Amino acid sequence: MNITATKPGTIWGVGLGPGDPDLMSVRAHRLLGQARHVAYFRKKGRPGHARCIVEGLLPPDVREIAMEYPVTTEIPLTDPRYNALLSAFYADCAAQLRALSQAGQEVLVLAEGDPFFYGSFMHLYDRLRDAVPVRVVPAITGMSAAWAATGQPITWGDDVMATLMGTLPEDDLVDRMCRADALVVMKIGRNIDKIRRALRRAGRFDAAWLVEYAAMPNQTVQKLSEAEGRVTPYFSIVIVHGQGRRP
Amino acid sequence: MNITATKPGTIWGVGLGPGDPDLMSVRAHRLLGQARHVAYFRKKGRPGHARCIVEGLLPPDVREIAMEYPVTTEIPLTDPRYNALLSAFYADCAAQLRALSQAGQEVLVLAEGDPFFYGSFMHLYDRLRDAVPVRVVPAITGMSAAWAATGQPITWGDDVMATLMGTLPEDDLVDRMCRADALVVMKIGRNIDKIRRALRRAGRFDAAWLVEYAAMPNQTVQKLSEAEGRVTPYFSIVIVHGQGRRP
Ligand SMILES: C[S@@+](CC[C@H](N)C(=O)[O-])C[C@H]1O[C@@H](n2cnc3c(N)ncnc32)[C@H](O)[C@@H]1O
Ligand SMILES: C[S@@+](CC[C@H](N)C(=O)[O-])C[C@H]1O[C@@H](n2cnc3c(N)ncnc32)[C@H](O)[C@@H]1O
Repeated sequence: MNITATKPGTIWGVGLGPGDPDLMSVRAHRLLGQARHVAYFRKKGRPGHARCIVEGLLPPDVREIAMEYPVTTEIPLTDPRYNALLSAFYADCAAQLRALSQAGQEVLVLAEGDPFFYGSFMHLYDRLRDAVPVRVVPAITGMSAAWAATGQPITWGDDVMATLMGTLPEDDLVDRMCRADALVVMKIGRNIDKIRRALRRAGRFDAAWLVEYAAMPNQTVQKLSEAEGRVTPYFSIVIVHGQGRRP
Repeated sequence: MNITATKPGTIWGVGLGPGDPDLMSVRAHRLLGQARHVAYFRKKGRPGHARCIVEGLLPPDVREIAMEYPVTTEIPLTDPRYNALLSAFYADCAAQLRALSQAGQEVLVLAEGDPFFYGSFMHLYDRLRDAVPVRVVPAITGMSAAWAATGQPITWGDDVMATLMGTLPEDDLVDRMCRADALVVMKIGRNIDKIRRALRRAGRFDAAWLVEYAAMPNQTVQKLSEAEGRVTPYFSIVIVHGQGRRP
């Protein structure tokens, strides 16, 4: 018997950085230019944000795998069916990528920001890492682009920085906001009013900045206190700069 | 009278990323290739780490400004003379760069990791920003390279991440280590024993990883518990991964 084993292809989690293609790493840029298969998450009916970042950088004959999130608007986030649905979706996507790898194909999974920092790629990584070769390309995070946009360093000296998700309960937010010098709050969207209240209770509201679409063409930067009533998009970050010692 | 005003040159704080030149941004890479003046900090008698990262990427006729830290080994960090000496040093460096800018020259200041994240470029930025045009190129942080090196995502779901400096007092470290899900400890060096004790007291020691020289040729990755007695270099990061919810 004569079996030629196919060498499995690598599945890459490629961090694309905050949005501006110029802020992608040299490695990511090179991988994209040689890509045979790219996969990315998107909402139904949308182009997909990660896919937009790489527009114009992929070879013409690249094969695209759009992984479309199941529509979940009818199921509340706290319903166990929500988790089950998402979990099945990630398992499906992972199976598809695993099959490509086993057929010898390399696939780039496009990831916004840094893939290992609150990224959705991590759900595929967990399901693939024991089965096929997986590699990750780190990247500039959305928060680095956000503090750069404010024109002020985020941390000095011994400053403690906390990154907090706007999805946390208000009391938890207040507690953490009191105990850190520099703050980064992500996943804002509908949580903005809760975040405002928490910052006020922690005495940090007046020092807070709101950055929308950091390092994207529609970037905005303003004091949070000047954004009263503003509807904040998914790509928003609240920043409170540390004020640690400096010679 | 006929005065031709010279347009001031921009001083750039160029983040180089964690060490591997392949992890530099496309923008940083392009700026370096066209550089006329580059400035970087270094210790006396050393090549300078930032300078090493860009080896081979600068034009042959580039002009280099090595900003050498004053020798301070005789003065303890807590002595006010230490601060005064450093402050005078940064003022000198800033004056030199300001003069170049006012003569119409663009200067790239090379920065390890992200310039606005505990970076020494910030001390020049503070002294230059009101006088001349200054721009910052964000970059991949050392911590992103460190968690990538561990092969595990740093944060999931609602995880709170704290970045802590090893220079903090032990009790402060313990307090913050207890209250965050994911931990990043930087500025390790001689503080490693204090950090070990703090992690033990916070019940996080067994989950801690030690990454030395992340994304550099001599990178090492190990559980901290397996590095007993090890002398850790300046470029070391301790990582404790978050274990937040995942579908
Ligand atoms: C699922 S997390 C992904 C984080 C990403 N992996 C990173 O490294 O930045 C999504 C959140 O990141 C933040 N975010 C990421 N990139 C951003 C950008 N360019 N501008 C504003 N917010 C951003 C927003 O708060 C958003 O809700
Ligand atoms: C003055 S801070 C500069 C941080 C830098 N601006 C960044 O964005 O990562 C120096 C500390 O950063 C950490 N660090 C930065 N880059 C690193 C790397 N590649 N590997 C290990 N540690 C690193 C070390 O803990 C070091 O003591």
